[in-house]
Amino acid sequence: MSETVAVIGAGLVGSLMTLGLAHRGYNVTLIDMRPDPRKTSNKSEKNLRSINLAVSDRGIRALEFVDKEMSERVLKDIIPMHGRMIHTLDGKQESQIYGLFGEHINSIDRGKLNEHLLDEIDLFNENSENSNKIQCIFNHKVAGLSFNTSFAKIKLINGDDKDNDNEIEKNFDFIIGADGSYSNIRYQIQKYIRMNYQQEYIDKCYLELYIPPGENGSFLIDPNHLHIWPRKEFMLIALANEDGSFTSTFFGPWKLTETLNKRELIEPFFNDNFPDAVKLIGMDNIVRVFKENPKGALMQVTCNKYNYSDKAIIIGDASHSMVPFYGQGMNCGFEDVRVLLQLLDKSTTREVAFDSYTESRHEDLKAILKLAIDNYNEMSTKVISSAYLFRKTLDSLLGKLLPKYWIPLYTMVSFRGDIPYSECIRREKRQQTILKIVETSLIGMCAIAGWWKYRKST
Amino acid sequence: MSETVAVIGAGLVGSLMTLGLAHRGYNVTLIDMRPDPRKTSNKSEKNLRSINLAVSDRGIRALEFVDKEMSERVLKDIIPMHGRMIHTLDGKQESQIYGLFGEHINSIDRGKLNEHLLDEIDLFNENSENSNKIQCIFNHKVAGLSFNTSFAKIKLINGDDKDNDNEIEKNFDFIIGADGSYSNIRYQIQKYIRMNYQQEYIDKCYLELYIPPGENGSFLIDPNHLHIWPRKEFMLIALANEDGSFTSTFFGPWKLTETLNKRELIEPFFNDNFPDAVKLIGMDNIVRVFKENPKGALMQVTCNKYNYSDKAIIIGDASHSMVPFYGQGMNCGFEDVRVLLQLLDKSTTREVAFDSYTESRHEDLKAILKLAIDNYNEMSTKVISSAYLFRKTLDSLLGKLLPKYWIPLYTMVSFRGDIPYSECIRREKRQQTILKIVETSLIGMCAIAGWWKYRKST
Repeated sequence: MSETVAVIGAGLVGSLMTLGLAHRGYNVTLIDMRPDPRKTSNKSEKNLRSINLAVSDRGIRALEFVDKEMSERVLKDIIPMHGRMIHTLDGKQESQIYGLFGEHINSIDRGKLNEHLLDEIDLFNENSENSNKIQCIFNHKVAGLSFNTSFAKIKLINGDDKDNDNEIEKNFDFIIGADGSYSNIRYQIQKYIRMNYQQEYIDKCYLELYIPPGENGSFLIDPNHLHIWPRKEFMLIALANEDGSFTSTFFGPWKLTETLNKRELIEPFFNDNFPDAVKLIGMDNIVRVFKENPKGALMQVTCNKYNYSDKAIIIGDASHSMVPFYGQGMNCGFEDVRVLLQLLDKSTTREVAFDSYTESRHEDLKAILKLAIDNYNEMSTKVISSAYLFRKTLDSLLGKLLPKYWIPLYTMVSFRGDIPYSECIRREKRQQTILKIVETSLIGMCAIAGWWKYRKST
Repeated sequence: MSETVAVIGAGLVGSLMTLGLAHRGYNVTLIDMRPDPRKTSNKSEKNLRSINLAVSDRGIRALEFVDKEMSERVLKDIIPMHGRMIHTLDGKQESQIYGLFGEHINSIDRGKLNEHLLDEIDLFNENSENSNKIQCIFNHKVAGLSFNTSFAKIKLINGDDKDNDNEIEKNFDFIIGADGSYSNIRYQIQKYIRMNYQQEYIDKCYLELYIPPGENGSFLIDPNHLHIWPRKEFMLIALANEDGSFTSTFFGPWKLTETLNKRELIEPFFNDNFPDAVKLIGMDNIVRVFKENPKGALMQVTCNKYNYSDKAIIIGDASHSMVPFYGQGMNCGFEDVRVLLQLLDKSTTREVAFDSYTESRHEDLKAILKLAIDNYNEMSTKVISSAYLFRKTLDSLLGKLLPKYWIPLYTMVSFRGDIPYSECIRREKRQQTILKIVETSLIGMCAIAGWWKYRKST
């Protein structure tokens, strides 16, 4: 008989993991405390605080690893973004291309991608060979979790049942926690293992804004760029949606953002700092969002280890919640799925696979969390510094001249999923050392040339 | 009407906080999920994993701040420890005195101190003026916690009630979480505030051993020292109890300790490393403890912030669990009580007091956690290094010569509760810089003197 597994969390990572396991013959039960997002009407509320996603190589690789055809279906609505579009204070737009050879990241709507993945689960079940291998239980909360030597026992409570009268108990061979930053499964397995754990809020919050489509669903700014209004302590970004609209996000310090609570304060702030964005979003909408919408917190979560023997493991945001500034949260979560499935495929026992995952994955997860937090500074400040642009030009030049030996950091992280995150950081350190030498030599050579010219002229 | 407060956790810190608040006129309800320790017969099990405590200046100061006479009563059984007694591998004992002017720390039984504090609560209630201002609810677990603008609502479940049928709901003006390293209150208030949080296990576990009294309750080794068998990667310590016995604790790496699971392995390990301790404890007892008793984990917990507006605050291990190597866990927790009570006494509102606590206390708590973890190396390794002993001698000499300007670190932490922990670290940094210069000068002077003597003799 096939082994039974419960995947907790029917978000992006949990849904992909469910498909990956089902393809391998496991009997998967996918459990989520929220209702099926395809059946809930309350869509606007759902999306109030969801940052648009950028899917890149690591995410696509993982989707293809699970099922190549499925990957094509779920990614059919993506919009390629070839670079950043920097909006300067005087209203100019400057394009900074991401890839050296035309590579691009892709804007995608989180909600839609999630629904596509859930549709894929239905499609999988409809295939007569699979005989409903996947069972989905929405609207049920994990109220308890316990383990013995042979199985994991889950107590489920129906979210509609206010009196908690109807607890369901289910046993599984193992469970996978993909239940997000505030993971209940992570909390539960801490009772069984000595888990190092850290959660840290950064002093920034975010608010989501909306740029409506132009006439006939046209885009008011270039859809194939990730738009940034970099203003150091705060910034605005925008990613295209397929209907011609953009999802825009304001990031700023809590203190500043909380003071922007009246039209008299919000109006001058936006007019001074984002005059061109005001025209796109509309001042009334900005004022309404700042006054009414809940501000999102930004938290980094790290932990170690990730598994309790062969009984439980956590993946995705449950094990590594990161700030969104490198656009890698989902990509990294999807990579978790690929890495774990590959380990399950090749290991003699599930315990070996889970232990190997904990051992090998931690360094990479630490690396991407550091890259994510550091990238706020890059997006909000450095992108307008000429020293940064000079070095970036050199970096790209070397990458084009020596593609085998020199790969810019952004390329490694976003377009080269074959290079582990930790290796990206190691290579980048070496490259930065060389870049500094090259820069210094260039400056030296210019100085000598200048002196030579001066001498000749006198 | 007086304000109502629930203190969660009737351990050392919670009990002292309860007394402190009651003295200030609050109506205090002290809640603990465990039964009243004075009424439970299962004492041996209770103490299987409790390290003996050393109470020092900060702890005593806080007890006296709450009630000077109470302090004298609860500390009547303490045994002064004037220094460390180092047990070398060849069975020699070397005393290293803690204080410069006769100061000492004090061995105390955690269980007894806890019972004394609970007795003090009864004594307080018996005073007719106080008319049972303190209510104790044992054996009740906090099953839920919620806040609104005017009060904190706690749901309590009786621990004996297996079906959780009889939930009690109680409202309080505010609550104080003193519920230890695995604090439930800390977890609950994270739903209301952005709390940075970190828990980290060190790669050491501990097992408690027992040195019985000699004839007629005599002490087999000097009771007025903290005994240490320093063996680098692992060590043994022992603190005296008033009945002539010692509570001894083995600290070692998890991997090593877990392999010591058979008599054939435990016997040679102890005979090789702690021959004199084997005679005191008895090999059969050592083997039984290593084979049967649960190993204790050692975890550090830090968080920030500590309060949710004026509604809730966490103190003691709930907010700063530390490894036991500086003997400051309880002392620091008691100091929390003093600091918080002083802030409540002088602040205009409770919110101001709680916010000030979070702001001012964090640096000190970070400091003592760092000192605690660093001190493992001092206790287990440095105490037998001659370079360390040389510097310590200089340090003490300067401390005796210049008592106003020079205070050795150990003295500041353990005997000078008027110096905040963070200030201890700052002063120690300056002193270490000077010590290095003095050392280098001394070595230089010796070299010159030697050269001079050599020159004169030739």
